[in-house]
Amino acid sequence: MFDLQAYLTDRREEIDRALDRALDRGTEDSRIVAAMRHSLMGGGKRLRPVLCMAAAGAVGGNASGKTARAAACALEMIHTYSLIHDDLPAMDDDDLRRGKPTCHRAFDEATAVLAGDALLTLAFESLAAAAMDGSGISPDRWLRVIREIAAAAGHHGMIEGQMRDIAAETTPLDREALEAMHSLKTGALIRASVRAGAMLGGGTETEIDALDRYAAQIGLAFQVTDDILNVEGDPAVMGKAAGTDASRNKSTYPGLMGLTASRSFARKLVENALQALDAFNAASDPLRAIARYILDRKR
Amino acid sequence: MFDLQAYLTDRREEIDRALDRALDRGTEDSRIVAAMRHSLMGGGKRLRPVLCMAAAGAVGGNASGKTARAAACALEMIHTYSLIHDDLPAMDDDDLRRGKPTCHRAFDEATAVLAGDALLTLAFESLAAAAMDGSGISPDRWLRVIREIAAAAGHHGMIEGQMRDIAAETTPLDREALEAMHSLKTGALIRASVRAGAMLGGGTETEIDALDRYAAQIGLAFQVTDDILNVEGDPAVMGKAAGTDASRNKSTYPGLMGLTASRSFARKLVENALQALDAFNAASDPLRAIARYILDRKR
Repeated sequence: MFDLQAYLTDRREEIDRALDRALDRGTEDSRIVAAMRHSLMGGGKRLRPVLCMAAAGAVGGNASGKTARAAACALEMIHTYSLIHDDLPAMDDDDLRRGKPTCHRAFDEATAVLAGDALLTLAFESLAAAAMDGSGISPDRWLRVIREIAAAAGHHGMIEGQMRDIAAETTPLDREALEAMHSLKTGALIRASVRAGAMLGGGTETEIDALDRYAAQIGLAFQVTDDILNVEGDPAVMGKAAGTDASRNKSTYPGLMGLTASRSFARKLVENALQALDAFNAASDPLRAIARYILDRKR
Repeated sequence: MFDLQAYLTDRREEIDRALDRALDRGTEDSRIVAAMRHSLMGGGKRLRPVLCMAAAGAVGGNASGKTARAAACALEMIHTYSLIHDDLPAMDDDDLRRGKPTCHRAFDEATAVLAGDALLTLAFESLAAAAMDGSGISPDRWLRVIREIAAAAGHHGMIEGQMRDIAAETTPLDREALEAMHSLKTGALIRASVRAGAMLGGGTETEIDALDRYAAQIGLAFQVTDDILNVEGDPAVMGKAAGTDASRNKSTYPGLMGLTASRSFARKLVENALQALDAFNAASDPLRAIARYILDRKR
């Protein structure tokens, strides 16, 4: 039986060590590095980097090799930058993130804007540096990884999703628009994480496509369970407040279809994700376990 | 005699057309694209892209070829993102930029943060896409260009410079600290612009090093003349207010060494820049003319 908790613990330790090194170049007294470190090393599920590494393993590559790890770190930097900026007073105006003060609370607003900018920039610097390091991956494949990650994070992906999320505060979304918003705001980068791992693991186009379908399903399942947790989760376990969606009149799956139907929908999405893995062998067991875990998670 | 104005007009038209295309993919009704376009297409000197293209030409490459132009556009996107974020209420809180309302004034603060993020991200997507397009440049050289541009824009370069510029509002800088701040805040990206052009133009390491020295000198000269213009420039010509440095107690060259010594210093820097070009032939005349133009500019 595959032990997901042990797998997650190992991958997270690898990721945290690599992220720590990425920020550790004689800059201990730098305020910008302190702010980047505050948000980047603040815990978190490391979902995107774990998915990237697991996808590399699923296609027969080395999940813990430095190639997949480099992409994994870049993806976490991009995710963290997006959280820092989303938390700003001009956006969600949040005080807590991952159980700690948000970046602009722990430092100041200007520093938080710049720390986000710096993490986004460092992600691409890290990717290019890893690519130059080679590790048996062709530069062409690395360039494709860089382009896909940038496209997923940009104004046709994550950033457009955030724009729609903000607009939804005043104009509620129907279910189709909610799904489109999520597929942009979080789905695009989750898919890019899995695709990047599959590419760097040496996957074929057929494998990359199958893993992309897996990622699209679990990405949405993750959002549905996020909405559910916001209704019934334990703030102490989640490290953030519950009930915030309702008080902000946010469009959510529980709000649009009720809690019971939301749970069924999440289960259906995870089943679809598992089906997309049908042609894969036991090397994709971590991806299977992650899909099931999304249904049961408490934070 | 080399006609700089005609050269600048031609390069700017090429850059503006390419930037316009980069934002033009069926997204006319997108608020984020409108905000990106507002700031990116708002005029501007296009100093970084012109330098990139001129450097490609100086080493015998094609200054107007699509390779140098792609890097030039990415550099302008990065420069523009930094202006959008610098103008935010939490930073300089500026209302006007390039003679138009700043992004957060024309749109709103959240949109301005995200438009900056999107331009930074698009810069790297564009670089990777151009690299995959080939154009006779090896993927390895493209990866080096991407890494150098990211490093220059990041927390060891431009972003650290902005942090120091903000800190200087409360703790005045001496001349050494002022020079260090400028070499980070603007010098790093200007050097990366020239270096990227030289690399993509097929320059040797010796040529890249010489052009790097040129760029470091004109980058600083540009800042010194910027400070001078803030004292004695014409707001109508500059498209932004004058006298703002003094009213904000900013550390400036005129403030630290007086106007006359500042002018001599700028002249000396430009002379050094021209010396760095000694080994180059007439193909570097645009770079020479740009160096001289920095002394005489009115905006």
